[in-house]
Amino acid sequence: MEFLDSYQEIVAKAIQEYEFSNEPHQLYQPMNYIIGHGGKRLRPIMVLMGCDLFDGNMQLAIKPALAIEFFHNFSLIHDDIMDEAPLRRGHPTIHTIHGINVGILSGDALLIKAYQFFEDLDAELFKKCVSIFSQTAAVLCEGQQMDVNFETQADVTYQDYITMIGNKTGVLSAASFKIGALIAGASEKDAQLLYEFGKHMGIAFQIMDDYLDVFGDMAQFGKRQAGDIFENKKTILYLLAMDHATKEEQEELLYWYSKKTENIDKVHGVLKIFRRTKVDEKVLRTIQKHNEIGQNYLEQIDLPQEKKAPFIELANYLLKRES
Amino acid sequence: MEFLDSYQEIVAKAIQEYEFSNEPHQLYQPMNYIIGHGGKRLRPIMVLMGCDLFDGNMQLAIKPALAIEFFHNFSLIHDDIMDEAPLRRGHPTIHTIHGINVGILSGDALLIKAYQFFEDLDAELFKKCVSIFSQTAAVLCEGQQMDVNFETQADVTYQDYITMIGNKTGVLSAASFKIGALIAGASEKDAQLLYEFGKHMGIAFQIMDDYLDVFGDMAQFGKRQAGDIFENKKTILYLLAMDHATKEEQEELLYWYSKKTENIDKVHGVLKIFRRTKVDEKVLRTIQKHNEIGQNYLEQIDLPQEKKAPFIELANYLLKRES
Repeated sequence: MEFLDSYQEIVAKAIQEYEFSNEPHQLYQPMNYIIGHGGKRLRPIMVLMGCDLFDGNMQLAIKPALAIEFFHNFSLIHDDIMDEAPLRRGHPTIHTIHGINVGILSGDALLIKAYQFFEDLDAELFKKCVSIFSQTAAVLCEGQQMDVNFETQADVTYQDYITMIGNKTGVLSAASFKIGALIAGASEKDAQLLYEFGKHMGIAFQIMDDYLDVFGDMAQFGKRQAGDIFENKKTILYLLAMDHATKEEQEELLYWYSKKTENIDKVHGVLKIFRRTKVDEKVLRTIQKHNEIGQNYLEQIDLPQEKKAPFIELANYLLKRES
Repeated sequence: MEFLDSYQEIVAKAIQEYEFSNEPHQLYQPMNYIIGHGGKRLRPIMVLMGCDLFDGNMQLAIKPALAIEFFHNFSLIHDDIMDEAPLRRGHPTIHTIHGINVGILSGDALLIKAYQFFEDLDAELFKKCVSIFSQTAAVLCEGQQMDVNFETQADVTYQDYITMIGNKTGVLSAASFKIGALIAGASEKDAQLLYEFGKHMGIAFQIMDDYLDVFGDMAQFGKRQAGDIFENKKTILYLLAMDHATKEEQEELLYWYSKKTENIDKVHGVLKIFRRTKVDEKVLRTIQKHNEIGQNYLEQIDLPQEKKAPFIELANYLLKRES
């Protein structure tokens, strides 16, 4: 998608321009390191797209877009410590290189810097954007804690799961779009419609991630096939399968998900139940449902269709990937 | 001091009123736990004092005062993980009870909640206070990193040390006073004068901490005597002693500070050099100097002396403690 490329270029340039050169470099260098190894920069791009949709001043949106990227990377640094992850985007994680203490502290500093990157906005806009940002950040912490709880919680429901991924993933896309829209001077109502679009897009995206983990083309997806099954993660596939399984199948699922094993029979056994209960089809329908809900919100924004086309294109791009 | 008691009561009531009852409680309960075990509440009290000095609306200052207390406790949670501290204020630390992951996450959430506690302020005041808050938080991270660096850095100077404790301790008292003053509608100039008073008071307080660690009355101070010496901390005492020691004494200090030992001879050996180089007197003079610099700033605020009396009383209370 061409429009993504041009946004990506803007973000890349801004990241370079605002690279941290402060001292002590032991604190700031790891922050540059993780931001420098960024992925698709979707979240800051969403800020810019939100601003463009309402014909806002792009220059004003660039630092807030970086704030969102900083926040995202702060959460990655701390999540990687919590998950004991050795790699992130193919590079050693910060705590692996510098230890947990530097990971904690440079994560903290990145969150604080994120707040500072809203300071070029006038007071009214600053307060609006920072309040949304804080609210989003708090909800993300809650989502992260829910995710941790699920590991040991026996009675996780499908609805709990949707709430959790909404909190962990949906709200950040949602807030990114909304902040961009507000910077462009959009009405609260329009900004909120774009927020809802982003939230459901984020949920659909996260569910697609779960789907691809098991049913995706691993050569492209770049992760170990069915890693979630090996790690006993109660994803939407597992929860739906439990809902639609026979008693025997439920017992088999519980058996496999109570064991940590590298035995490939586990994946075969679980997959058989996933296929029998048709969770693959059900999950694709759920993705489609959230995609439609999201696009319904987008339609309610009173702007020409061609202005909104990139949003639909982005949603389709994220959801139709096979990897 | 009576006036401290009445402020403490206000803070205690507010902490109770704004106790977190959100879900998931696994995230919020540790936040209540650490805040509930608070010490003297000096930092939120400084916000209230700053507000009172300029006859501000105390009600408006209460939530920002809690924001400062939340921030302080966020930094304690993360510092305790970094220091592997088992106890804080006589209670098990959060990571000791719930693990490092809960410690990281509830610390993060507490920092974010701190930002949210400014949201009752109008947009102009919100932006002013949040900007000071972020700036302070960033400087504190830098101070913390400097402190970590000092452990392995051979050429720490006296001035480096003053900068570090200014960043690690001074700026938070400073910002607390300033935020209170701004909420009361003080001029930028007066608020900044109070900031400088708070900064030098904080520096003096921290140096007093170092002094008492070695020369204080341990029965009252409640820490292990000379813990800093056992831990090879390059405090102001060590740095001044190195500056004034003979070559032989320097070598002896370097010898002791390169060893981790519980040998009491270490304390005796180091103390002998501290006394010979008169660092005890020098340090007390440094404390006095920062106290005077601070009070000079306070004097420049054009208000009746009796309005300012509690500030001088507080400074003297903090600096004249023997424990």
